[in-house]
Amino acid sequence: MVDLKTGSGKDKKSFLKVLTDVEKGIYVEKWGISGDELEAGDGWRIEKCRLYGGLSDGVDVITVDNGKLSFVVVPTRGMGIWKGEYRGTFLGWSSPVNNVVHPCHINLEARGGLGWLDGFNEWVVRCGLGSFGAPGVDVIRDNTGGEKKVILTLHGRIANIPAGVVKVKVGLEPSFELGVEGVVHERTMFGSNLKLTTSITTTPGSSSLKISDAVENLRGVPDEMQLLYHCNYGGPFLERGTRFVAPIRRVAPRDSIAAEGVDGFDVFGPPESGFAEQVYFMELLGNDDGRTKVMLVSRDETKAVSVSFSSKELPFFTLWKNTAAVEDGYVTGLEPATSFPNLKTFEREKNRVIKLKPGESYRAEVTLSVHLGKDEVQEACYDIEKIKGKTKPTVFKEPIRDFSPV
Amino acid sequence: MVDLKTGSGKDKKSFLKVLTDVEKGIYVEKWGISGDELEAGDGWRIEKCRLYGGLSDGVDVITVDNGKLSFVVVPTRGMGIWKGEYRGTFLGWSSPVNNVVHPCHINLEARGGLGWLDGFNEWVVRCGLGSFGAPGVDVIRDNTGGEKKVILTLHGRIANIPAGVVKVKVGLEPSFELGVEGVVHERTMFGSNLKLTTSITTTPGSSSLKISDAVENLRGVPDEMQLLYHCNYGGPFLERGTRFVAPIRRVAPRDSIAAEGVDGFDVFGPPESGFAEQVYFMELLGNDDGRTKVMLVSRDETKAVSVSFSSKELPFFTLWKNTAAVEDGYVTGLEPATSFPNLKTFEREKNRVIKLKPGESYRAEVTLSVHLGKDEVQEACYDIEKIKGKTKPTVFKEPIRDFSPV
Amino acid sequence: MVDLKTGSGKDKKSFLKVLTDVEKGIYVEKWGISGDELEAGDGWRIEKCRLYGGLSDGVDVITVDNGKLSFVVVPTRGMGIWKGEYRGTFLGWSSPVNNVVHPCHINLEARGGLGWLDGFNEWVVRCGLGSFGAPGVDVIRDNTGGEKKVILTLHGRIANIPAGVVKVKVGLEPSFELGVEGVVHERTMFGSNLKLTTSITTTPGSSSLKISDAVENLRGVPDEMQLLYHCNYGGPFLERGTRFVAPIRRVAPRDSIAAEGVDGFDVFGPPESGFAEQVYFMELLGNDDGRTKVMLVSRDETKAVSVSFSSKELPFFTLWKNTAAVEDGYVTGLEPATSFPNLKTFEREKNRVIKLKPGESYRAEVTLSVHLGKDEVQEACYDIEKIKGKTKPTVFKEPIRDFSPV
Repeated sequence: MVDLKTGSGKDKKSFLKVLTDVEKGIYVEKWGISGDELEAGDGWRIEKCRLYGGLSDGVDVITVDNGKLSFVVVPTRGMGIWKGEYRGTFLGWSSPVNNVVHPCHINLEARGGLGWLDGFNEWVVRCGLGSFGAPGVDVIRDNTGGEKKVILTLHGRIANIPAGVVKVKVGLEPSFELGVEGVVHERTMFGSNLKLTTSITTTPGSSSLKISDAVENLRGVPDEMQLLYHCNYGGPFLERGTRFVAPIRRVAPRDSIAAEGVDGFDVFGPPESGFAEQVYFMELLGNDDGRTKVMLVSRDETKAVSVSFSSKELPFFTLWKNTAAVEDGYVTGLEPATSFPNLKTFEREKNRVIKLKPGESYRAEVTLSVHLGKDEVQEACYDIEKIKGKTKPTVFKEPIRDFSPV
Repeated sequence: MVDLKTGSGKDKKSFLKVLTDVEKGIYVEKWGISGDELEAGDGWRIEKCRLYGGLSDGVDVITVDNGKLSFVVVPTRGMGIWKGEYRGTFLGWSSPVNNVVHPCHINLEARGGLGWLDGFNEWVVRCGLGSFGAPGVDVIRDNTGGEKKVILTLHGRIANIPAGVVKVKVGLEPSFELGVEGVVHERTMFGSNLKLTTSITTTPGSSSLKISDAVENLRGVPDEMQLLYHCNYGGPFLERGTRFVAPIRRVAPRDSIAAEGVDGFDVFGPPESGFAEQVYFMELLGNDDGRTKVMLVSRDETKAVSVSFSSKELPFFTLWKNTAAVEDGYVTGLEPATSFPNLKTFEREKNRVIKLKPGESYRAEVTLSVHLGKDEVQEACYDIEKIKGKTKPTVFKEPIRDFSPV
Repeated sequence: MVDLKTGSGKDKKSFLKVLTDVEKGIYVEKWGISGDELEAGDGWRIEKCRLYGGLSDGVDVITVDNGKLSFVVVPTRGMGIWKGEYRGTFLGWSSPVNNVVHPCHINLEARGGLGWLDGFNEWVVRCGLGSFGAPGVDVIRDNTGGEKKVILTLHGRIANIPAGVVKVKVGLEPSFELGVEGVVHERTMFGSNLKLTTSITTTPGSSSLKISDAVENLRGVPDEMQLLYHCNYGGPFLERGTRFVAPIRRVAPRDSIAAEGVDGFDVFGPPESGFAEQVYFMELLGNDDGRTKVMLVSRDETKAVSVSFSSKELPFFTLWKNTAAVEDGYVTGLEPATSFPNLKTFEREKNRVIKLKPGESYRAEVTLSVHLGKDEVQEACYDIEKIKGKTKPTVFKEPIRDFSPV
């Protein structure tokens, strides 16, 4: 298996623990491991438990603590990341829904397709996989081969489907990679059968985590797929004067409400009671490989968070500004995706819905990092400057037809 | 904390046990305590367990037995009271749905918003908090700031939301108050965020229990609130000839079906197969403090149940007569509320929907008592006579526009 | 109780184990028994466990292994039979939904009433009881006595309701009958209250299992009932050239798609990507008692499965041919029922919806058998020949109004 003498990259040993495998009848309710136990780096710890009581009853959570950065993966909610902490600083946001909610309490079709909002509180939540974006009516082919009008619910199903396979994987040689892997099936008879395989990794002491996903079409026929990473930040990274920094090629407001704020679209205001969300659609520049990065930088430029990804994998970016009162969810969403979060029917018209052949997979990676101190922040900003080069962003003052159904 | 020498009211010591606190990770599956253990009165017992199997799987129930009166609080179903017993006599009713149903099996939007009925079997169930009453269409403001038509489901969500905090509290000095406390959040992102804090108390040997509720608007913006206490009785308190006794100012039938029975609206018939419900809307008189009381009195006047509350807190009263066959739910509901249970849109037009400012709370108390023997029954009737004084109730023979959308 | 000396049929002793009784507070999570333990035949074993993790979390399954035939009963999913095996040969089919799904993850009203498909993977699943068949709109009488339009969801509710009572019963004298019994209530206030009592039995070494059901109307008023047994087979019994054999009186295609394949309606093709289901409605002949049988016979006639039932109890038969790609569910359904699976409103017009008086029960039995080897297959075919006699089936080339809403 592994040549301990050469210790070459390909042969790195790793420790693997299966926590859930429904088909094999494996389920571990409570479990943990640390660097000391494996003699594989120190200061880190991974713990798995099942929550009890209230709306969280029956939810599995896995906390990965790399020694500086910790985060909570929720297998029961489609392998989303509930919240995190970096050297004592909170990562995520304070949703009015402030406990993790078991999917059995979520009716996605409730209130005309807005039920997803009843469980929405994650730092990072995937939207998709059959569809994401605004709720509305679409036409599908039903079992009889006929057409059927159905409701597409806000942001789709994936965040409310428990993973059927969950594993913890730890590299036994430097960098001692710490990973949580999961498989989530979004499937039905006579409909989508999309398999999400995710690996969420970090390394001891790192200020980053990486989400590596593959979505495979298991059907015998071609099918559509949509994937958006809803990465959400409240305080302390979001505050009055926080700036959004990104290598923008084009940006346009989603609607007239966003158009009102377009001049300061990249600066955030303080919490404001009754604030209605402002959403901006963007195309970003990437480097030669397509790598790109967006950031939130605090007013004094001493702290920042960034989200890095490939503009080839995730070519459409949405900035969600929701600077409502703190109690109503003072938050911004950085949302790289396969399309904009309009109703899928519109995105389909624009040819922005991914089509997968039988057995075909779509891959995407997203890296979330924290930057503390002026040096780190500047360095990250510099990365973005390099990508941007001399390009001036095109800022549309009004919604444009190419981006949204105006 | 407590001055044992003075033993003054304010300083009464109490025993507290937290059974559930989702945020703190506390959950106690099985637990019990008795007067003997605390040397705080005797004959009483409080027990908590989790049910397994069937539709009840995962439901938490707490049985409070004060020695004479016992009742079952269901944290998993919004802190409702499933059923009770007083000196061997059953309190509640026999619903066709005769086991307690976990909310995960309830789809409130099912059958055009009637899904609530699939779990309806409580002695006392709160309706609300965002809305109660008939199902129908309302218009809300969605996340984009736009208007959206949504379905309001029958009697709202609160009865199908598990409590996130559950405590047992026992007074350690006379009267040795026995209490179950709970917090239930009805909330969503971009919508209602109402926090119900309830305390359900009795004392050893008492024939009464008291429900003390506060509903707080946790949003940063004003919001609506509705609250109705659906207090339901079948046999033996409901039987042919049972009378409804109350200090009525005005009463009107809800609809033409109720109008047919208006002459005997305060007397109950025997179980009748195929009986369609008759509903009467009322305004009640209160004493100087607003305190009022309604009763069901058996034909021979040897047994009665009463519901006491403040007509200031709960100014609208509904009598639900559903004297169907026993197997279909022979039952009457005594329903003090913040409005009538018409579709919320109608009640809003009539200015009967409560509006709460950010951080504002609405309080309501309801006391349920049992009266056995002619003396006790007469005494309770006399209380109502005193409130009524010489006022003659106005009985409308037909539905009136002030009360219902005729 | 039992006279051991005479050992007469009526007095046969049996061993009984209650695994779930919600009303009595009985729930056994893990349990098993074997012939050796009871000294009642050998080679057989019955095991009960609860699944954990993923979409199966909280599902109870009971595996009955008679030594040759084994099958998995799922109390949590309405006492359906998930899958089986006979002497190493798989019984059932490979649904895209390849794990058993807890009903709390099923929203029957999702996608216009197609949510049932999200959990559909059983070998044998009952459809009903209030309705089965295509989703669509029906009119019910609501609590106010008024008419209300509601959605009837595909194939009804029964497969997604956990049993409230589950027992294992073993005969202690030959033939040592092995049985799983269950009670499932499909009920709501102001609506259906249908009690399914089922007994699923086999005997050690047998190649058959028998489902014996009674559906009782517990309401105080008459009510409707529908019941269909969706018996599904994929490979190895379904393959290119497998034939459907049955004593057909009349057969008609459901729709134009089925009409295209009507000439070979009784022969199956190979898995075909993008195949749209073909459905054939039939009336079958029965023997003098009404007993009838349908079969799937492999091309080389060395293996077959049969479904036997009474054409008096289940007078309408549907053949569902869904020879789609293996990964999309290559499957055929043999579906004896109280009517055809059209929308209930259509079946009601045709007087094919069962009406039960208060307290009345409808009984049905279905026996599923496996036939291996040419001799066994021929013997079973001969049974069907006998029933058929000289009758030539009437094959309609187009849908007919008597059968479907063409």
